[in-house]
Amino acid sequence: MNNFVLHTPTRILFGKGQIAHLAAEIPADSKVLITFGGGSVKKNGVMDQVYSALQGFDVQEFGGIEPNPSFETLMKAVEVVKSENITFLLAVGGGSVLDGTKFIAAAAFYPQDPWHILQTGGAEIEQALPVGSVLTLPATGSESNRSAVITRRATHDKQAFRSNHVFPRFAVLDPVYTYSLPPHQIANGVVDAFIHTIEQYLTYPVDARVQDRFAEGLLLTLIEEGPKALADPENYDVRANVMWSATMALNGLIGAGVPQDWATHMLGHELTALHGLDHAQTLAIVLPSLMNIKRDTKREKLLQYAARIWGLHDGSDDQRIDGAIAATRSFFEQMGVPTRFSDYQLDGSSIPQLLSKLEEKGLTALGERQDITLEVSRQIYLDAR
Amino acid sequence: MNNFVLHTPTRILFGKGQIAHLAAEIPADSKVLITFGGGSVKKNGVMDQVYSALQGFDVQEFGGIEPNPSFETLMKAVEVVKSENITFLLAVGGGSVLDGTKFIAAAAFYPQDPWHILQTGGAEIEQALPVGSVLTLPATGSESNRSAVITRRATHDKQAFRSNHVFPRFAVLDPVYTYSLPPHQIANGVVDAFIHTIEQYLTYPVDARVQDRFAEGLLLTLIEEGPKALADPENYDVRANVMWSATMALNGLIGAGVPQDWATHMLGHELTALHGLDHAQTLAIVLPSLMNIKRDTKREKLLQYAARIWGLHDGSDDQRIDGAIAATRSFFEQMGVPTRFSDYQLDGSSIPQLLSKLEEKGLTALGERQDITLEVSRQIYLDAR
Repeated sequence: MNNFVLHTPTRILFGKGQIAHLAAEIPADSKVLITFGGGSVKKNGVMDQVYSALQGFDVQEFGGIEPNPSFETLMKAVEVVKSENITFLLAVGGGSVLDGTKFIAAAAFYPQDPWHILQTGGAEIEQALPVGSVLTLPATGSESNRSAVITRRATHDKQAFRSNHVFPRFAVLDPVYTYSLPPHQIANGVVDAFIHTIEQYLTYPVDARVQDRFAEGLLLTLIEEGPKALADPENYDVRANVMWSATMALNGLIGAGVPQDWATHMLGHELTALHGLDHAQTLAIVLPSLMNIKRDTKREKLLQYAARIWGLHDGSDDQRIDGAIAATRSFFEQMGVPTRFSDYQLDGSSIPQLLSKLEEKGLTALGERQDITLEVSRQIYLDAR
Repeated sequence: MNNFVLHTPTRILFGKGQIAHLAAEIPADSKVLITFGGGSVKKNGVMDQVYSALQGFDVQEFGGIEPNPSFETLMKAVEVVKSENITFLLAVGGGSVLDGTKFIAAAAFYPQDPWHILQTGGAEIEQALPVGSVLTLPATGSESNRSAVITRRATHDKQAFRSNHVFPRFAVLDPVYTYSLPPHQIANGVVDAFIHTIEQYLTYPVDARVQDRFAEGLLLTLIEEGPKALADPENYDVRANVMWSATMALNGLIGAGVPQDWATHMLGHELTALHGLDHAQTLAIVLPSLMNIKRDTKREKLLQYAARIWGLHDGSDDQRIDGAIAATRSFFEQMGVPTRFSDYQLDGSSIPQLLSKLEEKGLTALGERQDITLEVSRQIYLDAR
C-alpha cells in the first residue's frame, strides 16, 4: 500500500427529508448566494424546499451555471458575490453547479486574474468562501471533495483545480431529488461514477485490499442498480444506492494509498471541449479502448476485475480480459450511453486536433505509469472509432 | 437504506514515516501533553520519533493510562492539564489511550463532576481540548471517531460517551509501529475490528448495498491478513491492511444508514468489568453464541454472511448458518483468542451477576430490534460456556 493523506471533512446529510436540517448547517448571520443551473430545481420543487428551510436568512440567487461550467459565466457570479457581500455559497444542483461554485468561492478572494487558479491547479488559493450543497444529481462526487473542472468557452480549455479551501462544509443528499431527472442524466451519472471508480482501481496491484474491495463494492452496486434506476425511477433504495456510490467513488477514500490512472478523463475532456459531448459519454468512449490498448501493463488488475466484477474465471488471460472489456461496453450501452465515436457521428478525423490539444497542455505522459504518450493516446482514440 | 448523518473530519496520515509531518498538524504555539499507556512506546522508539517531530513545542507527558482506561487515572491527567495550562493533547498508543485522552479533553472543561459525562453519554459536552493521535495498535477505530469507553475501577462500571467535540483532529497511522506489538495484542485488535464490523453488518437487510459490501470487504481482509499478521509480524502490507481495516471498521462509514446491533459489546463489557478479560476476548466469547441464539431474526444477513464471507452455498439455511458460526469461531481461535467461558477458567456461575449489572444499567432490550431481553442475554451467556 502506498502512503497517503485522507481528509473527508464534508458532513453528509443523507436521505429523504434531510433538507429540514439545512439551516443548522449554515452560520446564522450568513448572506447566502444560492447557485444553480438551468432551472430544473425551480420546476421540480427542490428550490421551494431550500427557501423554506432557509427562512430568516438573507438569500440571493445566481442561476445559469451550465454543464461543463464556464469561466465566463462564473466570473459574473463572482461580481455578485463582491457587490452583495455574500458570505456563504449554497450550490443546488449537480456536479457542474458544485464545481462552478467552488471556483466562485476561490475566485472571490483571489488577488489576481482568477484564470490563474486554473493555470496553477489551485495551488495558490489561500482562502475561499464557505460552500455547502444540496445535491440533485449523483455523479461527480464533487459534493465531498476538493476538486473542480472549469471550461473556458473562448478557447475550449477545460482545466481542473483543487484546494483544501473549497471542500464543501456539508452536502444534503436526498435520493428523492433525483426522481425527476431525465433518464440520460441518471445514465451519465452512473457511468461517470463507475469510471471514477475504475480510474482509481484498474491500475496495478499494491496489495491494498480494503481499497480494492471498496472499489469493487461500488462497481458491483452501480452495475446492479444503474439499469434499475432507469427502469424504475422512483425506487427509493435504488436511487439511494446509486447516489451513495457516486459520492463514495470520488471523496478520496477508494483512491487513498493506491496508484491512479485518470487518462480516460484527460482524453475524454478533449472530446467534450472540441465536440461538446457529455462528460460521461466521452468516458464511455475512451475507457473500453484504453483497457484494450493498455491490457499488458494493467493485466493483473484487469484479470481481478474480470473475475470479481464479471465472474469471468474460464479461458485464457486475454479471453477473460476481452470478456471484461465487452461486458463493460455492454453495461454502458445498456445504460443508454454509446461507446464509439461513430455512435456520435464522429469519424475520427478530429483525432489530430485532440492530440494537439493534449500536447499543448503537456499531457504527453498520462496514466498510472506515465506511459500513455501521445502515440498511445492516438491508438486509444483510433481504437474507439 | 436508512437516513444518516456521516461526519469523518479526522485527517488521516497513513504510512511509513508519516510522523515526519506531525508538527504541521498541531497549532504552532501549543502546550502539548503527550498521553500514553504502559510505556512500550518508550521502549520501541515511537516516543523518540514523536519528540523528534515535536522539536520547538512545549511538551509534557502523562503515562500510565491502562487498558480499559480508568476514570481514576484519567482524572489525574485532568489535573495536569489544568495546572500546566495544556492546549493540545497528543495520544500516543492504542484505543485505550485514545479513549482516555478523549475523556481528558472533555473533562478539562466540564463544569461539574466529570463522571456526569459518562452518566449522560457525553450529551452535555460543550467544548474539549483538541486531540491528535499517533496510533500504535490497530483495533478500536477510536483514532477517527467521536466515541470512548471508560471504566470506573471502584465500581466496575464501564461506560461509553460520544461527542463531536472529541473527534481527533488527525491520526498518524504507521504500520511499522505495530511490528513490536506482542502477538496477543495484534490478535485482539483483529478480532475487535472484525466484531466492530459485524455489529454494523449482521442485523437485517435494508438494501444498503455499498455499506454491506464495504463491511464484507473489511471482514474478508481481516480473515486473510489476521493470521499473516501473527505469522509474519514485519510484513508491511499485511500490517497496513489490518491497520486500515480497523480504522474503517469504526469511523462511522460502514454503519451509516444501516441498523446496528452492539449487543455483543454490551454483554462483553460486563465480562471485562467483572472478570478483567481483554475486550476482544469477551467479544469472541459472546459473538458466536449471539449468532446462534439470534439466528431467526438475523437469518437473512447470516445467510448473506455465510455465502459472501465463508463461501457457504450448499445445505439447508440452518446448516449454512451453523457453518458460518463454526467458521467465525474457528477464525478467532486461529488468531489465538478462545471463544468459550471455559477457556478462561469461567464456569458460568457469574452469569446472574453479569445479568444484574445489565439490569442495573437498564440494558434489558439490546440489539438492532431491542429484543435481547435479560432472558435472551442469559441464553447467550449460557450458550457461551
